[in-house]
Order: sequence, then structure tokens, then C-alpha cells
Amino acid sequence: MRPNLLPSTPRLNGADAEATRQEISAYFHATFDRYEQLFELLACAEGYYQKPIALRHPLVFYLGHTATFFINKLVLAGLLTERVEPQFESIFAVGVDEMSWDDLDARHYDWPGVDEVMAYRKEVRRQVGRLIQTLPLNLPITWDHPWWVILMGIEHERIHLETSSVLIRQQRLEYVRTHADWRPCMTVAAAPQNTLVKIPAGSVRLGMDKSEPYYGWDNEYGRHAADIPAFSVGCYLVSNQEYLQFVAAEGYRNDSFWEEEGRAWKNFAHAAHPAFWVCDGDEWRLRLLSEEVPMHWDWPVEVNYHEAKAFCNWKRNTSGQPYRLPTEDEWYRLYAVSGLDEAADGQVAANLHLQQHASSCPVNTYRHGDLYDVVGNVWQWTETPIYPFEGFEVHPLYDDFTTPTFDGKHNLIKGGSWISCGNETRKSARYAFRRHFFQHAGFRYVISDVAVESPASHYETDKLLSEYAEFHYGDSYFDVPNFSKALAQLAITAMAGKPARKALDLGCASGRACFELARHFEQVTGVDFSARFIGMGVQMAQQGVLRYTLADEGDLVEYKERTLSELGLDAVRHKVEFLQGDACNLKPNLSGYDLILAANLIDRLYRPRQFLAEVHQRLNPGGILLLASPYTWLEEHTPRADWIGGYKKDGERVTTLEGLQELLSPHFRRIAGPLAVPFVIRETRRKFQHTLSEVTLWERIA
Amino acid sequence: MRPNLLPSTPRLNGADAEATRQEISAYFHATFDRYEQLFELLACAEGYYQKPIALRHPLVFYLGHTATFFINKLVLAGLLTERVEPQFESIFAVGVDEMSWDDLDARHYDWPGVDEVMAYRKEVRRQVGRLIQTLPLNLPITWDHPWWVILMGIEHERIHLETSSVLIRQQRLEYVRTHADWRPCMTVAAAPQNTLVKIPAGSVRLGMDKSEPYYGWDNEYGRHAADIPAFSVGCYLVSNQEYLQFVAAEGYRNDSFWEEEGRAWKNFAHAAHPAFWVCDGDEWRLRLLSEEVPMHWDWPVEVNYHEAKAFCNWKRNTSGQPYRLPTEDEWYRLYAVSGLDEAADGQVAANLHLQQHASSCPVNTYRHGDLYDVVGNVWQWTETPIYPFEGFEVHPLYDDFTTPTFDGKHNLIKGGSWISCGNETRKSARYAFRRHFFQHAGFRYVISDVAVESPASHYETDKLLSEYAEFHYGDSYFDVPNFSKALAQLAITAMAGKPARKALDLGCASGRACFELARHFEQVTGVDFSARFIGMGVQMAQQGVLRYTLADEGDLVEYKERTLSELGLDAVRHKVEFLQGDACNLKPNLSGYDLILAANLIDRLYRPRQFLAEVHQRLNPGGILLLASPYTWLEEHTPRADWIGGYKKDGERVTTLEGLQELLSPHFRRIAGPLAVPFVIRETRRKFQHTLSEVTLWERIA
Repeated sequence: MRPNLLPSTPRLNGADAEATRQEISAYFHATFDRYEQLFELLACAEGYYQKPIALRHPLVFYLGHTATFFINKLVLAGLLTERVEPQFESIFAVGVDEMSWDDLDARHYDWPGVDEVMAYRKEVRRQVGRLIQTLPLNLPITWDHPWWVILMGIEHERIHLETSSVLIRQQRLEYVRTHADWRPCMTVAAAPQNTLVKIPAGSVRLGMDKSEPYYGWDNEYGRHAADIPAFSVGCYLVSNQEYLQFVAAEGYRNDSFWEEEGRAWKNFAHAAHPAFWVCDGDEWRLRLLSEEVPMHWDWPVEVNYHEAKAFCNWKRNTSGQPYRLPTEDEWYRLYAVSGLDEAADGQVAANLHLQQHASSCPVNTYRHGDLYDVVGNVWQWTETPIYPFEGFEVHPLYDDFTTPTFDGKHNLIKGGSWISCGNETRKSARYAFRRHFFQHAGFRYVISDVAVESPASHYETDKLLSEYAEFHYGDSYFDVPNFSKALAQLAITAMAGKPARKALDLGCASGRACFELARHFEQVTGVDFSARFIGMGVQMAQQGVLRYTLADEGDLVEYKERTLSELGLDAVRHKVEFLQGDACNLKPNLSGYDLILAANLIDRLYRPRQFLAEVHQRLNPGGILLLASPYTWLEEHTPRADWIGGYKKDGERVTTLEGLQELLSPHFRRIAGPLAVPFVIRETRRKFQHTLSEVTLWERIA
Repeated sequence: MRPNLLPSTPRLNGADAEATRQEISAYFHATFDRYEQLFELLACAEGYYQKPIALRHPLVFYLGHTATFFINKLVLAGLLTERVEPQFESIFAVGVDEMSWDDLDARHYDWPGVDEVMAYRKEVRRQVGRLIQTLPLNLPITWDHPWWVILMGIEHERIHLETSSVLIRQQRLEYVRTHADWRPCMTVAAAPQNTLVKIPAGSVRLGMDKSEPYYGWDNEYGRHAADIPAFSVGCYLVSNQEYLQFVAAEGYRNDSFWEEEGRAWKNFAHAAHPAFWVCDGDEWRLRLLSEEVPMHWDWPVEVNYHEAKAFCNWKRNTSGQPYRLPTEDEWYRLYAVSGLDEAADGQVAANLHLQQHASSCPVNTYRHGDLYDVVGNVWQWTETPIYPFEGFEVHPLYDDFTTPTFDGKHNLIKGGSWISCGNETRKSARYAFRRHFFQHAGFRYVISDVAVESPASHYETDKLLSEYAEFHYGDSYFDVPNFSKALAQLAITAMAGKPARKALDLGCASGRACFELARHFEQVTGVDFSARFIGMGVQMAQQGVLRYTLADEGDLVEYKERTLSELGLDAVRHKVEFLQGDACNLKPNLSGYDLILAANLIDRLYRPRQFLAEVHQRLNPGGILLLASPYTWLEEHTPRADWIGGYKKDGERVTTLEGLQELLSPHFRRIAGPLAVPFVIRETRRKFQHTLSEVTLWERIA
């Protein structure tokens, strides 16, 4: 396969712009060529138009798609002013994202002919090629450089080179043909006995810096570090031979080895063996790109995450050892101890980058330190759902490349396969798929006592919750200072000289004030009626980071991340706890507080009178109650008879402040307020709630 | 009756504060005495506890009520810190406001004994008397002076002296008794023949200034002026004799004489004659305060507005002359031509102020110039529903004295009756009651070709409409300038050098921008889908004033008035017209404009694409389209497929600005924007919407 060696992803910070221009030109054309060549594996029109699997478009879509992607992004970036073929650029724009295996797509498309698509590709190639030759170019090319979008288009096509090859491998045999430039590995041997290799404890640092001189996808940037205890790992990827033991042990019939989601998939799909295994009477054959061959027992097994995990659970069960898949962090330890350096430039001996074969090869072919196939051959499933590194930002020209996969349901695969190339082969690459998905992917196992913790990957998209995330932790608008912080400061000032052991934030919502109070108090408890709101506080306390979408206009959103350390609150997060609870019916043990904060709470209670009559019981003598409310009394929250004010009694106006004074006076003395403290809640880029909350502070005197 | 002559309402700007203090003290005690004496007309407990009419409280309530009113207002004003009897001050606080004759009140009250109420009154008298003797007093006493509330309490009791006397007159005969201090007029004679007196054209000026040295109710202050064409008026009040012709002519059976509301009342009440007439076989008797006597044919008839109006309609029908009731303004012309001066000090000879009798007297007794009974004897119904003068403000200590009657359903009565005293007898007094209500009230008729126009009395209380009234015409919040004005200024600046004949404001809401555009354009048309919104603009254009309530907290509101002249827009209001219309389906004749303004419109249209594709047809070549919108696309207003932006198309973000550019480019060139222009909509005293509207200006080029 050496003649088809693809150029590696170019270095973008050279001194010679013209040389880089020609390198990018070559990179573009080679990728475009190799991609078109892949489709030569299709033997007939049915190969293009019959779907290999029900959940994806037919292959003709993918032929057009990578060209359209160039045009759409170049138009978006303002580098092209005219479209090439608007109709094509609509139908080829968006793939079917196979988000769920039971989400059948029934859309009908009237696909154009292959000749038309090829003619379209030719014109796109001409235009992109011309742009590469004519656009002004200053080095380095970075994330916000006009040329970034050209690299994006090429790398995007390289991804599809791999994923389309998987679809072809899933296409019916009669629709495909062998091809001289896509020849599989031919060696046949027995598989080696797998052994365990000890990996010493160590630390890893992940995340690219924007100054790195290579193209990267959004998810690769940011910061992540971890200390990894020692663990053991399989020397080889799990081979078909090794996996056969699990199949033979009726592993696919024994639900107890399968995680809940995996069991549901297995039963839906009626899976009884790896998808590319073909049962031919009493022997197993193996489906390759475009042919079936006798089983290569020494090649890595190709499975989805669920199958890999079930295998580990079976091993755990039969051995008593804590088998599992590696985490992403652990994979980087393998990379470090293997002595591999950067593999992206094709200098590493590995079944990678189409350097060797158009297929897997025996698991004992490419040695990397004490291990084999740390990179290449097939991708390796991890236990880790993809998550954003601290400092993650979406690229403005492709804001949905990664963000839809930050849902805890897309697990990372590492190391690349025989067809992975370009960015895919880089150490920093991070690809993730739904756990039931098939790629040229297998696994290696580790033995470790350390439980896997899923990092926070969730972006809060619920409208109300994300509004509150921004309200508490986000930016200020109209120069209005952060409300939670302002209230906490008022409370702390009022506490001067008083004990400051315990504070209670009733109606804490997403919890910012709890952290602000923890600057002064030894212990802060946040209580809210809504477990969903509290979830945001809990995540901040545990992970120190919160991610959410901000409504922009219409359906458009922005992605946002805030960390406690940015807010100077990381050091106090251990002092904060959150509990779900009802301010009108609090548990008895919530008492003995030096401060109770009730921000924007009383006009949302169903029994504010009872709350105000009893709240002193929770406070220490001399303790302080801080009330803040815009007094927006509404019957949907509070029966009219329970309003504290805002009505006429015996013909005369009763304000809420008067009502508070009357209800609290048996146990409290007002020591400050009323003050009007403003807050702003962002609803969209242009629409805000701007409210004045009336703040009063009350000292318990009885 | 001379011995019971009540002091007149005191002058409040004297030089001798101690003398005024003693005058107020005497005024208070005399009023308190006379009020208690009225209840001596009740012969038994049933008189206090059986309701004279189903729609009002029993008389025991009114005995307690005037005392409680003192305490409630003094507490509210901060002059008293302790209540006298909290329970009494709750049950005696609010009367049943007989807002509708078919609104039966079924509440049950457990009224205290008369002795208890009298003991309570005694204690209230002691406390108020002590306050009057001890409170510091600086003259003059004005609207915002601490003593104003004391005058308010006394004048309030004087009103109830009259209204309670009406209830006693409606009480069953067996529950009342005669009383030496409440003796009726005894003269008996035939009624004079009524004649017409010509009143020359003239002008009137109504409305008190706050500097006047007498107590006044909120509705008396402000400014109103009118020119009154000549008219004729009955020399006498209509007597029982004169009214009998209408009864005899079957006037109560002939629906055609009755206005719609009057007909409904008549049929509900089965009215067949005036309420105080008693049919005794074949003769008529007359119910007085506490006795029935043979009919006094020369006394004024006592009727409600509907009966008076039906009489006029009958006269109109039989005579062919335009008989009707006088307007309030016309009554002031009678006052002027009669040569009457201020009647409040008791120097005018009239059956007023309890100076003469505890009843009416013959209509030809008190001559005022060419007329009789311009003031006194009985009140005189007018055609005018009470309305606020320009500059009307509520008094903060009694904000619902008048405002609930600004509903077009309460007509003014003028002139006072034999029992009217204090403020009631002043020229400036303005009392109004529901048109079916009985007082000691009758009428005189006028003949005039001038149709009666009801002045604007309505306070907009609908939440959304009043928010928009404030948004367009009200105060600014957070220092954000008026949005409509800002847009109009942007438009006018962009029009420099262009023709400025016609402007169209599409989605004009309550119309402020129309008036602002009229500073520059010869003619401005405002179009809105909502007739209710347009109603506010129409009122501004016709009356130059808009009144509305502003939500404060809970159910509490503030009353607000804005005039075009305050805004410097009075001179242009004749250039503005308003039409109800649909921006997506405009009438063909709305074209030929030099400017079209569409503020906060496009994201509320159901077909914004069609609107944008066609709007150029309405503009002259070179004309300008100003669009302003926060692009808050919502499916409840606009089907998703019709959004101009805020969605992904073929995988890429489409902003509304891009969508506008694409849709408008065939006919427009963007000449300014995007600019972010803020606006604030007040929802409550503390809660606001704060929004940035994106403004673009487009010149029609094709």
C-alpha cells in the first residue's frame, strides 16, 4: 500500500507560506482523490443508492457530502460568495446523525445520479483548488485564521474516508467489489496468548493549546490533568481468538454480563456475535471492506462498546479480577509508557494511515514498548464518555461538531485504525461515538481497582435552568453586578463580629450565593425545592465547572462554560452542600444557623406566612435573616390569602414590607433595608428580565 | 331649622392657626353630633339591622363606618399608632359599593350592638378630638399636609350624612320615626308652570388649583375649559306635577323613551313611577325621611338618571324639540348666569346645608337670577359621566375615592340637596353615582342642538395595554430613552433631503411613534392588528390624554395620566390617524409612503416572509423602511418555516439579519444598522422587560 501513502496533516506555522500553500494543496487533492477512490469499491448503482444500514443515508449522500461541506463552510466564512449548486448544497448538507439505534429515519430523498455528483465534485475541487492557490496566506494558520476552514474541510473529508469505509463494509457483498488499491492484509496465523503488562502510577495532561501548529477539532483544546494509579493492561488488543471464548461461553445469551443499555441494544439487534463475523455453517468467516474471508483469528476483534464491556464483565466474573476498559486518561498512560512519540507524521510503525493494509492485521505485528497496537490496527473503546476540557470553546464555523455528543452517551475511542489519517492519527485526537456504534474498533482491557468516574459532559439546555446558570455564574448585563454575590456581601457585612459557622441559603436555585457565603462561613447549606436546580450547584461543588447553552435568537444557541476557579471560589467549594427541600416544610435538623438567606423566595412559596412565622426557629439568637424579593405575588404560586402584601385590607393598601414587619416583629428587629438590589436574567441575546429585588435584613431578638 | 345650622367647611389658609384649630374642632364635633342625630330617626333595632335595600349594608354599618374611617386614615397617615378596636375597624371599613343593580351581595355579617357602636364612636371622638387639640398645626393646610386627613374624615362623614339619610328614607316606615330636628317643609301649593330661559353662549373653566384654601376631593383638582353654545333651560327643576304628565302618558310602559341601560333597569326593577311616590288607591303620596305625606306637587320630582332621561326623550318626542339633561359644563353656565357666587359659606338663599328643611321645598321658592334652584333643594342629574380633569391625581391616602367611578357609568349630579353640606355645597364639588341610583336628586331639562360627548374617563387597567401605555407615553426606567421616540428620530434623520409627506407605522401598538413621526411628516398612519391597542392611540389623537393604571405589587396599582402636550406633541396630533389592519394583508390603498416603520413587528407576524417580499410596494421609490426587532421568534406567533432567521439551514446558522438581507435585497439597499436600540417595559414596580431591538434602515431601490 505504500504507493497510496497519504500526506500527513500539515504543519501550520512554517516560515515559508508558499511551501505551506503547496503542502495544503497536495493534502487537499490527495484526500479528495483517495475519497473518490474509496467509492470505486461499489460495484453497481445499488451500492450507491441502497442503504447499507437503515439508520444512515445511502453512500451517494456521502460522496456529495464532503464536497458540499467545503462549499457551505467557505460561504459561511465569506471566502466564497457564490454557491456551486444550491440544490445539492442543501440535500448533501446534513447527514442522518445516528443518535439512537431505535430511531428509524423514514425520510425520502430523491438523490441525483452518480455522474452528476462526480461532476459536482469536480467543480468543487476546481474552486477549492483555486482558492488554495490564490487566497492570501500568512502563517501561522490558527483557529481564527481564514484558512482554518480549508483545513477543516480536508480533515472533515478524512473522517468520512473512514466512516464511509465502515458503511461500505456494511454494504451487501453483491454491491461491492475488490480493488487493487484497497487490498487487505493476507497473513494468516494463530493468535498469540494475551498477557498483562503493569503500568506504573503516573500523571497525564491532556488538551491542546491554541498555539499548536496543527489543525485540531474544538474538543481537543483546553486543559485536563489527572493522576493515574498503577493498573494492568492487556499486552495485545483482544483478538478474534480471545473473544471467541466469550462467544463460546454463551456470553451473548447471558444478560448478566451486559450493562443495562448494552442489554437493550443486544436484544433489539438480536446480536449473537461480533457484527463482522459471518457464521458459515460450523465455521466463522470475516467480512472485510468488500469481501468475506476465512476468519483471521489473530486479528483484533471488532465490536461496539457494549460488546467490549460485556467481555470485560465476563472476564471479571470468571477471574474475580476487576477487568474493564481503560479510561481516556489511562490510554494516555499507555501512550506515555510505550515510548511512542507523536504518531501523526507517519513515522511510527503501526497499521495506521493506510500505510500498511486496507484491513486489520495480526495483533502481534506492531510493537510499541511492552505493548502492541497502542495506536493503529483498530480503534480502542474507552470507558470515558466524551466531555469538554476546561476552557472548551466551540468553533464559530462548526458549532455542532462536538457539542451534541456532550451527553454522556458518546464514548471516546482512541488510537486510530488502519484507515485513520490526518488529524485522526494525532495523539490529541478525540473521537466519540454512541456506544452501540460500529467502527473499525475493538478494545484492550485493563485490570484496575479504581472505579471509573464519568466527567461532567452535560450542557444544560433546559431554557429555565440555563437561564439560571447564566444568572448565577455567567456574565453581567447592563452593568448590573452579580446578584447572588451582592446579597452574600450584604449578609457578610451585616455579620461583622457575629459567629459565622453555619449559613443556610433557602431557595438557593443553582447555588451561586452558597459559594459566595462560603468565603465567610465555615459551612453553607443550599436548599431548593427543585432537584434540577440543585443539580447545577452539586455539579459546581463536585466538578467545579458548569456548562450550558445560552439562547441566542430563535433556535440558535451559544455554548458556555463557567468554573468556580474563574470566579475565585474553588477554594471554598468543600464547605458547600446542597439538599432538596421545601422551605415551608423543612427537616427539623436544618437549624442552628447564624445566617439564613432567602433570595427571591417568599413570593414563590405556597405558605409564606407560615414560613415567616417559623423561620426564627432555624436561626441562632442574634442570627440574621436576609430577605430579598421583588414581591411579584401571583396566585399560581401563592394563594391570595397568603400574600404578605400587595393587596387592600379593610380598604387600605398593605405593602409587602409592612406585611413582613408585622409578621417578623415578634422575633426579629429590622437592622437594614429596604434596599433595591437589581438583577438581570438573560432570555435571549436581546431579551432580558431586569428586576429590582427589595432586600431587608432582620436580626433574631426572641 | 336654623338652630341646627352646620358650620361650613373651614378656610384652611388663615393667619391664626389656633383659631383654625378651634374652627376645625367645632366642625368635627358638629358633624359627629349631627350624624349621630340622624340615627335617632330609627325607631327600633330592626331599623339598624334590617337592610333598607338589598344591595347595601344595614344602617348599623354606616353608624360605625364614619368613625372607623377616621381611625383607618389616621393610622395610614401615621398620626395614630394604635387602633381603637381592630375588629370594628375591619368590619366597618369597607361598604358594599353598589356598582350594579343586579349584583346581589349575599355576605353575612355578625354586626355588633348599637350600644357597642356608640361606645366605639365615643372613643373615636375622644381620640380625634384630642388630636385636633394637640397636633402641631401650621397653616395653610394643603393636600399633602398632615391635617388634610382630619378634614378628609369630617367631609367623609358629611357625605354619609346625606347618603345615610337616603337609606333611612328607603327604610320601612315601621322602623323609623319623626324627630323634631328633622322636620320637613310644610307648605302646600300647586306647582308653577315651567318655562324656558335662554342661556347665551359662553365659556366655562372647571377644576380647582391645589392652592385653594378649602378641602377638596381628588376629582375636583385639575384643569378643564369649554366653550358652550347658547341653549335653553327649564326655569324650575321638574316638579312632581310636571313629571306626572310623563307617568300619566304611560311613560314607564313605553320602552321607546328609555335608553338601553335605563330600559334594562326599569324592567328589572319593575319601576312604574318615581321611587318615593307611593300609590295609595287613586291618589299619590310622598315618602319623606321618616313619614309619608300627601303628594307635594310643587316639590321637585326625585328620580334616577334613567327616569330623568326618559322624561326628556318623551318631551323630545312630543315637542319635536331637542330636550335633554344639561352637561356638567352647561350647569356651570347656569351657575354663572344666575349671578350666584360661591354658595359654600351658607350666604346664598337656597334649600341647602340643612339651613331650611329636612326635605325638599317648592320649586319656585329660591330664585337665582332668572332661574330657581340652581343650587339646593335636590341634586340635578347631568348627561356627563364623571371623568378626571387634566392633571388629575389620586390622593395617596384615599386612592379609590374616585378612580373606580371613572368607568363611563357614573354620572355627575350637581347643585346639592337640602341636606348637602360642607364640601358638597361648594361650586367645585363633583359627585357621581351609577345612573340607576337614588339620591335626593331630580333634574332640570335643557333644549340644545349640541350633541353630548362623553369625555374620556377610562383608566386602562388591562395589564398588557397599560404596560404599553407606559412603554409608549410613560416614564423611562434604567435611563433608557423612550423607544418610539428614538426610532422616530432615527427615521427622521435618515429622511434628510427626502420628501416627507406620508409615513406608515405598521404594528403601531398604542401609537407613540406616530405622533413622533408627525413632527416631521405631513401625515402619519398607524396600523395595528389590535383594535384595543389602537384605541389608546385614537384616544390620544382625539382627547390628547391617556389614563391607565400601573401595577405596583400584587393587586396594588398606581393611577397615571399622560397628555400629548406634556410630551410636546399636541400641535401635531391632527396629522395622525389610526387604522386596524393586518400587516400581512394590508388594504391596497395603504401605499405611496415615504417611510414605513415596523417596530417590534416582524417576529410577531404569521407570514413575515410574505410581508418582507411585498412591503416595497407600499413605499415610494427612494423611500425608507425602518425595521426594529429583538428577533424573538416563537412558534406561537410564526410557523417555524416562516422564521426569517434564528435556525440552522443545511447545517449552518442563519441569523435574522442575514435572512432580512436576503429577502429585502431585490428591492432595498441597507443604509444603516444594525443598531441595538434598547427598550424597557414595566410589569410591576420592581419587574421589567429590558430588551435590545435590532434596528436596520433600508432604502427602496427597485
